[in-house]
Amino acid sequence: MKPFFGTEHDVIMLTCAGTGALEAAVVNTLSPGDEVLAVTMGSFGDRFAKIADVYGAKVTRLDVEWGHAPTPAAVRAAAAEITGLKAVLLTHNETSTGVTSDIPALAAAVRDAAPDALILVDAISALGAVPFAMDAWGLDLVVTGSQKAWMAAPGMAMAAVGPRAWAASETATMPRFYLDLKRHKDTAAAGETPWTPAVAVMYQVDEGLRLMQAEGAEAIFARHEACAAASRAGLAALGFELFADERYYSRTVTAAHVPDGLDWKSFNGTLKERGLVLAGGQGKLKGRIFRLGHLGSVTVEEILGALATLEAVSIEHGRPVEPGIAVAAAQRAALAAGGVFSMTVAGTPA
Amino acid sequence: MKPFFGTEHDVIMLTCAGTGALEAAVVNTLSPGDEVLAVTMGSFGDRFAKIADVYGAKVTRLDVEWGHAPTPAAVRAAAAEITGLKAVLLTHNETSTGVTSDIPALAAAVRDAAPDALILVDAISALGAVPFAMDAWGLDLVVTGSQKAWMAAPGMAMAAVGPRAWAASETATMPRFYLDLKRHKDTAAAGETPWTPAVAVMYQVDEGLRLMQAEGAEAIFARHEACAAASRAGLAALGFELFADERYYSRTVTAAHVPDGLDWKSFNGTLKERGLVLAGGQGKLKGRIFRLGHLGSVTVEEILGALATLEAVSIEHGRPVEPGIAVAAAQRAALAAGGVFSMTVAGTPA
Repeated sequence: MKPFFGTEHDVIMLTCAGTGALEAAVVNTLSPGDEVLAVTMGSFGDRFAKIADVYGAKVTRLDVEWGHAPTPAAVRAAAAEITGLKAVLLTHNETSTGVTSDIPALAAAVRDAAPDALILVDAISALGAVPFAMDAWGLDLVVTGSQKAWMAAPGMAMAAVGPRAWAASETATMPRFYLDLKRHKDTAAAGETPWTPAVAVMYQVDEGLRLMQAEGAEAIFARHEACAAASRAGLAALGFELFADERYYSRTVTAAHVPDGLDWKSFNGTLKERGLVLAGGQGKLKGRIFRLGHLGSVTVEEILGALATLEAVSIEHGRPVEPGIAVAAAQRAALAAGGVFSMTVAGTPA
Repeated sequence: MKPFFGTEHDVIMLTCAGTGALEAAVVNTLSPGDEVLAVTMGSFGDRFAKIADVYGAKVTRLDVEWGHAPTPAAVRAAAAEITGLKAVLLTHNETSTGVTSDIPALAAAVRDAAPDALILVDAISALGAVPFAMDAWGLDLVVTGSQKAWMAAPGMAMAAVGPRAWAASETATMPRFYLDLKRHKDTAAAGETPWTPAVAVMYQVDEGLRLMQAEGAEAIFARHEACAAASRAGLAALGFELFADERYYSRTVTAAHVPDGLDWKSFNGTLKERGLVLAGGQGKLKGRIFRLGHLGSVTVEEILGALATLEAVSIEHGRPVEPGIAVAAAQRAALAAGGVFSMTVAGTPA
């Protein structure tokens, strides 16, 4: 897994959801009263901030308008204002809005303003599907989850822990036991976990990694790029206004506005009947946006199928759509984005 | 699952190992500085005590010699000595020693000495396989894990929470987020979990429960009783001294001493070659005992098979064993214990 994190440091496997790994990132490195800057651009950034708050950190929030990404200048300014800043919480890919932030630029801004601050990153919903370079970008702790790019069932989360984070864990006084990363590191040396792991999920992650190694990182990244481009082009051709700032489109999930006047409940009900499951908006975006996921084993063929269904149901519900327009636009976009349509996996299951 | 807990209260599903549920029991009901009596008779009791300690409870330990169970008198005396006792931690079945404590008697002793103390019970490794009556016994919070009697893969843990525990959670100040039971209760009302659950394990637990309902609680309990009796009789016939106090033998795991003079590493290596995996001792019992598990889908037929292998390997390693003695003794004991040999499951998978 280390090449996908872009790290030579430890990757710890926890039996929990991604949220548990976010909690591990906080409680293993911080003490109550520590100054924390939580940069949030959606529901998951809010959750990360909330965890630090619950465990007694002194949290300053930098709230970015949902659909947008934080700018390095804003992060630099916010970090510079906090005396004794101990950690900055960043979201790599905000699933609730379909936005991917520019982590290397944000990390450089933090280092510039507060060289000693830890940089803790929620990379749950894109790591493995897009290029990532934890060590080169100077990140201290990065987390992801089994059910994302790794194509396994949910139940395990992974945390990559750099030397500054390990050093911080030696003095961090937030209480921890089940999610204690040091206990996991110590037992990992003997090929064990401190508590019973979700071993069936572990085997799945192992198989996911085998598939990913067979496909190759560049091919995986290109396939996600093509799926994302096809999704955006297809939704736009269907008259759905995309939600995210176009400079920060996610390559793993695309969000679009629910158009004024569309009876979303009825429309979405028909989609479900045809087998297409979209995600609704979270938090303050509930009922205002919908989201099309394209992470993991997804292919452009599947995106074209989803768009074909959306096209058919749009026509059925009286939306002014020219038959074929969405799939044609998606196809052109996928080709322009590199044309990696399918998973190209060599070899047979181990 | 409620009938197996013997409760009409809430059963919360968490995505974590059993240890995570032990942590949930502590952090959702207690505050730092609270007086806690930790009754421990082995590794898992020690772990429960350690969790309370890590989160700042004032922990008084009642240590019972490993292989033995706590007496109601000792628990009553220990509870009576602590002013303002807030909670008592009990282990139902201590997997590390093969001992099951008398929870209803211990709970009555606690209620006698400290009527207001919460009773938090680790019932991970036997609940579902033996009779249990949380509400009738006056227990406040009881936890178990998916990979035990429920016959699923590890990755989920269940916590039954009574009204006194819920009331305590309203004032408990130990920090919690991922393992916050209230958040789970609130989302359960809408058929959801607050974070992504280990959904594949959840389906397995559901199927395990279907099998358990089809077999029936009484038949399950009788099958475990027969497996335990067969295990004890077979091991004794092979000359292995049983480890646990015979008044408190576990019905889900049997521990025996490694005999003086036996080269355990070599003996166990041969067992593994023949496909029989025994567990070693934990903590201070490492190298001193071995354990034969009989929990979940296990049958007397399988126990007889395990004993036949132990018998054959004993002979091979020069131990003085009469061929057939262990399986015959086990068979007689299983018959005397009720004679439920197999899982008797009606119906087909849903």
